[in-house]
Amino acid sequence: MQLIDGKAIAAQIKLELAEEVTQIVENGGKIPHLAAILVGHDGGSETYVASKVRACEEIGFHSTLIRYDDNVTEKELLCKIIELNNNHDVDGFIVQLPLPKHISEQKVIETIDYRKDVDGFHPVNVGRMSIGLPCFVSATPAGIIELLKRYNIETSGKRCTVLGRSNIVGKPVATLLMQKSNPGNCTVTVCHSLTKNIEEYCRQADIIIAALGSPGFLRGNMVKEGAVVIDVGTSRILSDKTKSGYKLCGDVNFEEVAPKCSYITPVPGGVGPMTIVSLMKNNLLAGKKIIYQ
Amino acid sequence: MQLIDGKAIAAQIKLELAEEVTQIVENGGKIPHLAAILVGHDGGSETYVASKVRACEEIGFHSTLIRYDDNVTEKELLCKIIELNNNHDVDGFIVQLPLPKHISEQKVIETIDYRKDVDGFHPVNVGRMSIGLPCFVSATPAGIIELLKRYNIETSGKRCTVLGRSNIVGKPVATLLMQKSNPGNCTVTVCHSLTKNIEEYCRQADIIIAALGSPGFLRGNMVKEGAVVIDVGTSRILSDKTKSGYKLCGDVNFEEVAPKCSYITPVPGGVGPMTIVSLMKNNLLAGKKIIYQ
Repeated sequence: MQLIDGKAIAAQIKLELAEEVTQIVENGGKIPHLAAILVGHDGGSETYVASKVRACEEIGFHSTLIRYDDNVTEKELLCKIIELNNNHDVDGFIVQLPLPKHISEQKVIETIDYRKDVDGFHPVNVGRMSIGLPCFVSATPAGIIELLKRYNIETSGKRCTVLGRSNIVGKPVATLLMQKSNPGNCTVTVCHSLTKNIEEYCRQADIIIAALGSPGFLRGNMVKEGAVVIDVGTSRILSDKTKSGYKLCGDVNFEEVAPKCSYITPVPGGVGPMTIVSLMKNNLLAGKKIIYQ
Repeated sequence: MQLIDGKAIAAQIKLELAEEVTQIVENGGKIPHLAAILVGHDGGSETYVASKVRACEEIGFHSTLIRYDDNVTEKELLCKIIELNNNHDVDGFIVQLPLPKHISEQKVIETIDYRKDVDGFHPVNVGRMSIGLPCFVSATPAGIIELLKRYNIETSGKRCTVLGRSNIVGKPVATLLMQKSNPGNCTVTVCHSLTKNIEEYCRQADIIIAALGSPGFLRGNMVKEGAVVIDVGTSRILSDKTKSGYKLCGDVNFEEVAPKCSYITPVPGGVGPMTIVSLMKNNLLAGKKIIYQ
């Protein structure tokens, strides 16, 4: 069993990105600039945004954090988005989700100029990904693909079971893994809450992407010998053993599953760190105007 | 075994659409207008476009057919598209594919205003469909969903095998069938040229969508008793028994497969006629400005 060390790979990619930024500066180019909008004070969101800002600093990006209280109006938020769309210094930006209920997340997403949508949530980016065109691929699916690539894990012709059909992980990672590409060319099955015999699909899979948000869902008896298991779960569970008072818990029962795997990602330290560097990669692409002019 | 009579359902839907047009006229509204651009003289394209124009006439839509020779420049074609985008009388339009090699199909598709893209090929429509938002769903997948709906075929929790991963059938129909919707909620597996043991995925399926473009691919021994089989294949095969000199051939060996099925579509007369009425439905939605303002 080999542990897929997302933290180490992410650190490596950050170095590569920092190197690119250095070269851009040496060539007199513009330093990529990522902006983030954070509404309210949700604990998870605070942590994620802080990590993103820190990653910008490590890589050498400019970053701007824009904060609003929970009671910001939708209109005010949309105006800020339009301002960022028109701000030539900002290459890409994100609005950290979830948002308060009085604000339409979909309206927010669709107001972002798709050419600056480094989260890859805008329909243009989702559609282009599905079609197989260059685009900003959303960070978690992109991070998973990058891990498979960096570990040279064979995907062509492999049986892949995706657990979960969310818009931000399940559906896009399924699409990416079935494309004519490398990684890709998998035979993908997408399972969800209404799937019957979900255990069977897991046991038959060469590659399992677990993105249900159901802590410890995947048990040892549901995995075949030699499987590759990617755990995308990040449920926050109360814990008296950590400073913060909670711990991250994946969808995989690691103790049971790991011994049977050829490769497995831990939680934390697997997919999570990759998500942030994938966002950074998208922002570098945005800065270099490689995907869109 | 029940035959899914796409021709009859399509005729029924045309009547429903014609009724809606009559009501629009009675209420002093604008008659929906569909335009089609046809480049060159490909036999298949000529037939398809002629059927679309005829369907417009039957339903009471206005239609405009714009023809170009094979040697039209990309620029000229794109200018016409922009003209149609700005023509307030045209509610929706299509550019019949395939196009000559010197013209980028993707550029053509992306130049069409997504609010008039009744073929549903623009990334905005593809992305919105994937996310589960209102959009123009491309005609063939929409036609398949409509057939399942009209025959009250249960899909929730069913095992569905999609053969083929094309952008116009395989991937979108897989996406639609896995959504939280009815029809939908299937456990979908997408098979393709690199799938190993494709027969096994077929034999396990409650519902098979065959969209490989491989005449007679699905044999009797690859289908379980009681399966629902939707044949999307439309290969043109030379024949001395028809006036035109060719016949349409599906992906399913009908004689072998039909006796085992609970429901099956024939070729011709199954999915084909539904494709055209789905396009008409999209154009009615475009005319009524229901999806986009």
